[in-house]
Amino acid sequence: MPTKTNRQVVIAGIPTDQLHVSHYKMSEAVVPEPAEGQVLIRTLLISMDPIRRSSITGKPGGLQIGDVMPSSGLGQIVKSRAAGFSEGQVVECFPGWQDYALQKPDELGAFERLGPLTDHLSVYGVSGLTGYFGMVEAGAPKAGETVLVSAAGGAVGHIAGQIAKIRGARVVGIVSAPEKAAWLTGTLGYDAAIDRRAGPMSEAIKRACPEGVDLYFDNVGGEILETAMTRMKDHGRIVICGYASQYDTHTPQTATKGVPSVVLFKRLRIDGYVVNDYYAHKQAAREQLSAWVKSGAINVAVDCLDGLERAPEAYVGLFHGDNRGKRMVRVADEV
Amino acid sequence: MPTKTNRQVVIAGIPTDQLHVSHYKMSEAVVPEPAEGQVLIRTLLISMDPIRRSSITGKPGGLQIGDVMPSSGLGQIVKSRAAGFSEGQVVECFPGWQDYALQKPDELGAFERLGPLTDHLSVYGVSGLTGYFGMVEAGAPKAGETVLVSAAGGAVGHIAGQIAKIRGARVVGIVSAPEKAAWLTGTLGYDAAIDRRAGPMSEAIKRACPEGVDLYFDNVGGEILETAMTRMKDHGRIVICGYASQYDTHTPQTATKGVPSVVLFKRLRIDGYVVNDYYAHKQAAREQLSAWVKSGAINVAVDCLDGLERAPEAYVGLFHGDNRGKRMVRVADEV
Repeated sequence: MPTKTNRQVVIAGIPTDQLHVSHYKMSEAVVPEPAEGQVLIRTLLISMDPIRRSSITGKPGGLQIGDVMPSSGLGQIVKSRAAGFSEGQVVECFPGWQDYALQKPDELGAFERLGPLTDHLSVYGVSGLTGYFGMVEAGAPKAGETVLVSAAGGAVGHIAGQIAKIRGARVVGIVSAPEKAAWLTGTLGYDAAIDRRAGPMSEAIKRACPEGVDLYFDNVGGEILETAMTRMKDHGRIVICGYASQYDTHTPQTATKGVPSVVLFKRLRIDGYVVNDYYAHKQAAREQLSAWVKSGAINVAVDCLDGLERAPEAYVGLFHGDNRGKRMVRVADEV
Repeated sequence: MPTKTNRQVVIAGIPTDQLHVSHYKMSEAVVPEPAEGQVLIRTLLISMDPIRRSSITGKPGGLQIGDVMPSSGLGQIVKSRAAGFSEGQVVECFPGWQDYALQKPDELGAFERLGPLTDHLSVYGVSGLTGYFGMVEAGAPKAGETVLVSAAGGAVGHIAGQIAKIRGARVVGIVSAPEKAAWLTGTLGYDAAIDRRAGPMSEAIKRACPEGVDLYFDNVGGEILETAMTRMKDHGRIVICGYASQYDTHTPQTATKGVPSVVLFKRLRIDGYVVNDYYAHKQAAREQLSAWVKSGAINVAVDCLDGLERAPEAYVGLFHGDNRGKRMVRVADEV
């Protein structure tokens, strides 16, 4: 084991604006030995999460050149020197973009298998739970309401939108390509879809939501948030789940038009929402999600690229709307 | 009567930035005769409302040169040709800045006297009700919470802050002068007050609210809103009641920093609030306010200038923080 190589994808450069694959490079290290209280895990799947982009700015406290790109994922325990974890066990972990990682027990989570491992980074993972609690608890649309979802074909959005549909809402999704729009209405059961690159958003939302929007579930921020705000019904609700349009730039739009004026005149409610606040109910959520997956009410989209070396390409593509559902990279198969 | 003169304050110029008394002039007209279905009222008190500033931009649909400045107020009926309204009756009305005005029944409101007429434009009028429903219904602080109020010595703020205090909150007010700050803590019972001109707001809020803010009741928008947002506790609530800092300029700040980022990370809730939504409960609110006024729990601040000719000066001063409590102008005494 000590002679084995641990491939690592490390930061090779700090972007001055958009992230590019050239900001990463492959590096090699020796597979480490776990100390007492640690486990060595072999990485199986790594999760591609847009929010980590905000650490790649070169600022103190953020990622620096040579650092392994951090990431949550699933791994299989190769060697355990920690009580309660045994070799061969597959766990939730935080391995980063590398073949092997040392972990402490508080970085690991055991889980009950509800489907293929890819589902555990998707519908049963953070993004699925984010869609679940975001719609069931934070947004809570009523039957007949009009729900607008941005990044509606993304990891969180495609789950959130389908749950709004299960609750009886009329669901409209915003995506970044015509094929994705067709997928939303054809496969995921959305009532309408808007390709944000096809024309002015304000007109497009008006056409898709002629009576206005009751609930806007926002993953992107920026101009789409500003435009959606003007299309809300009086007393409409906006759930802020993310603002991905501002992650991949060094000149993010830090202010939002319509606050406070439109918020006041339309008596809108805006809620910031973070999934962690609901983790006490994680298991019940997974069971509900599993029932919906089994009944066909939820169609799980997994966008998995094979091979650690493809992680940079997989990650950069997120910011160009390449993914459909949860994007992840398979580093190794379970043995 | 037809030979009597009706003094009117009309728009004399459109401000290119801040409003000035020279944008008004006194004019004269003949006192009109009510047609069938109208009443003629003599103006007693006119209400100085910052939000009307937004109509003085020269844009189509807004006020034009020569127009009488619009305003709500209280008036006494001189001549009635409308069923249900009798001569001598004092009513809520919308007279504008003039001695006499024709009104239709749907512009008039009868009311039960709960105190001096000035109280009916203040604590029992729109601004008092705005403070009442804004704190009791929209903000709804719990005992022990920290409540921050901007424009805390203003028409709405001084009522809202005192109601937060009645509910057992720790109440901190933001005002624009040291004497006002002393008045908040000395007379109105605020726990602390911040003079926004005395130094950086962020530090001042931190000192006054060392554990953060549970509820921010905002009347001003702009930089104070942005700064307060960064001082909220996680899961704090912001009630948007107005944004007076942006009314008196032709280059308003239309976007707010911290939306969506701070809203997301702190899981804030922002609610746009308009008093009209609660008018079904107006009478119950007035009775509760009256009980608090009688018990001394609410100290009503009325800032009344005498004489129609002083209306421009009274109004312009609002935007420089001259008022203490509800500003109004007495045009005539009840007879």
